[in-house]
Amino acid sequence: MASSLGRLSGSRFWSTALGCGSPRPRAWPPGPATGRFCGTPLGGPGSGGARGLGYGPGTGGAGVGGGARRAPWLVAGLAAGLAGVAAASLQHLARAEMVPRTEGVSGVRERADELALRCSSFMAQPVTALSELRARQGDMKTQMELLIMETQAQVCQALAQLDRGANFSVDRWERKEGGGGISCVLQDGHVFEKAGVSISVVHGTLSEEAAKQMRNRGKVFKTKNGQLAFSAMGVSSVIHPKNPHAPTFHFNYRYFEVEEADGSKQWWFGGGCDLTPTYLNQEDAVHFHKTLKDACDQHDPSLYPKFKKWCDDYFIIKHRGERRGIGGIFFDDLDSPSKEDVFHFVQSCARAVVPSYIPLVQKHCNDPFTPQEKQWQQLRRGRYVEFNLLYDRGTKFGLLTPGSRIESILMSLPLTARWEYMHAPSKNSKEAEILEVLHHPKDWVH
Amino acid sequence: MASSLGRLSGSRFWSTALGCGSPRPRAWPPGPATGRFCGTPLGGPGSGGARGLGYGPGTGGAGVGGGARRAPWLVAGLAAGLAGVAAASLQHLARAEMVPRTEGVSGVRERADELALRCSSFMAQPVTALSELRARQGDMKTQMELLIMETQAQVCQALAQLDRGANFSVDRWERKEGGGGISCVLQDGHVFEKAGVSISVVHGTLSEEAAKQMRNRGKVFKTKNGQLAFSAMGVSSVIHPKNPHAPTFHFNYRYFEVEEADGSKQWWFGGGCDLTPTYLNQEDAVHFHKTLKDACDQHDPSLYPKFKKWCDDYFIIKHRGERRGIGGIFFDDLDSPSKEDVFHFVQSCARAVVPSYIPLVQKHCNDPFTPQEKQWQQLRRGRYVEFNLLYDRGTKFGLLTPGSRIESILMSLPLTARWEYMHAPSKNSKEAEILEVLHHPKDWVH
Repeated sequence: MASSLGRLSGSRFWSTALGCGSPRPRAWPPGPATGRFCGTPLGGPGSGGARGLGYGPGTGGAGVGGGARRAPWLVAGLAAGLAGVAAASLQHLARAEMVPRTEGVSGVRERADELALRCSSFMAQPVTALSELRARQGDMKTQMELLIMETQAQVCQALAQLDRGANFSVDRWERKEGGGGISCVLQDGHVFEKAGVSISVVHGTLSEEAAKQMRNRGKVFKTKNGQLAFSAMGVSSVIHPKNPHAPTFHFNYRYFEVEEADGSKQWWFGGGCDLTPTYLNQEDAVHFHKTLKDACDQHDPSLYPKFKKWCDDYFIIKHRGERRGIGGIFFDDLDSPSKEDVFHFVQSCARAVVPSYIPLVQKHCNDPFTPQEKQWQQLRRGRYVEFNLLYDRGTKFGLLTPGSRIESILMSLPLTARWEYMHAPSKNSKEAEILEVLHHPKDWVH
Repeated sequence: MASSLGRLSGSRFWSTALGCGSPRPRAWPPGPATGRFCGTPLGGPGSGGARGLGYGPGTGGAGVGGGARRAPWLVAGLAAGLAGVAAASLQHLARAEMVPRTEGVSGVRERADELALRCSSFMAQPVTALSELRARQGDMKTQMELLIMETQAQVCQALAQLDRGANFSVDRWERKEGGGGISCVLQDGHVFEKAGVSISVVHGTLSEEAAKQMRNRGKVFKTKNGQLAFSAMGVSSVIHPKNPHAPTFHFNYRYFEVEEADGSKQWWFGGGCDLTPTYLNQEDAVHFHKTLKDACDQHDPSLYPKFKKWCDDYFIIKHRGERRGIGGIFFDDLDSPSKEDVFHFVQSCARAVVPSYIPLVQKHCNDPFTPQEKQWQQLRRGRYVEFNLLYDRGTKFGLLTPGSRIESILMSLPLTARWEYMHAPSKNSKEAEILEVLHHPKDWVH
């Protein structure tokens, strides 16, 4: 297990500072095109310009089958699960302490540079030291770590703006074997029942068993003494609002690299986001899917339909014969045509998170509701738990991996859930309406 | 999926009757030695007399490893899971309708016989027709079906006596491929949050995959065209009281037979019961374990220690590093020295169910409690869900089997549960006290 970083105060953990004692004011909620929390462009030049990407055979429309070709949960699982610290040693950082202080920080050179400026709006110092990030600025691992940090900050800021005064904790943890993560959780707030946004950046070697799981997916990696060097990072979030008319939301974007025995490297991206309403609201569903489609269409008009179907195929509660929610996008194994092209696509998706979802919560967080509607929400929460514990590959892999940070993996579970024996909504009810869509996914944008 | 039996009214589903329009009055709670709900001895002559049983090597102290030798969940899974009916077609039988009517029943011969007399106190007609049960009275399948029916009735009667006026539903269902079951569930009562007692009696052929799972356990069965004829039956129950000072309880007893290609038969028994208190009560823990030990000791003093350890080893929430509760007994693969001997042992265990548990609920169901204690109960309910969905082999096998009756499998889940991020009880609290025992199981009876 990793050692504790100790109590995190601004000047102790923050190696750079920018003289900004509070977050810069930003337009909010941002529109799809300006949905960046961080004022500085993230991906460097060329973002959003790649069109006509042919993401390689089998990466898209293959559905769940396609997803099984290479352990897609490996990144999510490793990102969420491998970074182990003793829960008791974890530190909470109050929201007021998130912003670095200027006093007592010596990094004059860092203060001036662009990288430090970008990092100043993150929820905590990146997992990788600034000096290392600066030394390999062109590297995809650096670009992706900055993207997931930026996304985490962007979402947390939006949540905190909606749920003022809520207890938002920030836990920074290290993984003994290499890397670490930052988990931000808002629990039992005014608007949100539970909202977690976690990033992790881990590296090391995969065990022979883990390597074997990858081979099972159709690809044989050349290991060295049964070990495979890897690097994995991702951002992952589940947000459960209190109001039953405000939907639950999940997103996850991740990047994976393995280095084979002969030194050659394999890489791929995965991710997606999906919406789980308690009650169907057509307008919300269209807004959500349209925002995702716009993000995908910037790169290739074939992407949204493929990844929408993949999402419908993945988020199935098999024993119930129903989807978890009304879908979104899901993809894995994206490894062509180039790292940069796929990164820019993932970047567009990540930047669509806030504009796709936050307006829906803002719209519904004060809707009136009945005790019956709250109860139906609780039953749907039960279904969410069933999917996450029984089927979600990231959750399962994370939990079964020794040394996982359990609290970060299970932050996806709702604060409360309910199971009633033989519950069945009455015909033509609002509850039956959403069930119908969960049994038969719809096309929301054509 | 099996067809529905239609609305169950006394005279329609009951093929025999005894002129008892209401249950016979019984002493309650019964002591361990007289803990039979049914006034008629169940197992025929010789019950309880077998001592010095050597249940064969590896059936006991091998712990989880021992349990893995032959798919122990196969019976539980099949018993709970294979019997498929559409939930929508299931019928509820109000408690007032449980007792068979005398009017309009033609079975004069049946009315007079001992078998029909015993069946009269069951929650519903046995799955197997009375005529068939009568034709093979000496057969173990008949003996076991009567035992599980008797146990179900005994437990349901005790629950109903404690929770008067609660809505207790009885669902009888058929499995198209052979057999069926009876699920009895009391939900949101005065005393019980949710209490389910289900029996199933199924038969047919195991798929090649299921047969392979059995081979994985170290035993190779000779299949015919990849198929293996099997017969499985069991009683399974989870009981969640409302009061946080009244513990949750689970039990399951099951019997399995397979017929190999050459006509030879293999058989074994499995089962156990365990207690999951929200708060530790030493006196309760001693009473519970002592009652189980007494039941085991009737057969062999070595059984309780072996099966107590097996239980501690099985009910582990691995990712939390804690047990689900304070244990009980757990065993599987019991296949020696003889069917009759093992059956009598299982019978003793089944008859210990009510006296081991019901007095604890009776003692605590009116205890005062604080909102904080209720909340801790809800958090422990969350852990119960984690175990059942992530680790319980019966639940997992049942859910993954096409045509399972999902509602019967998931009746084990609590009505409500809670997950808090980073919850940790304060030192020396009552919550920390039970956690300590969940981390380090105790010997309660020596």
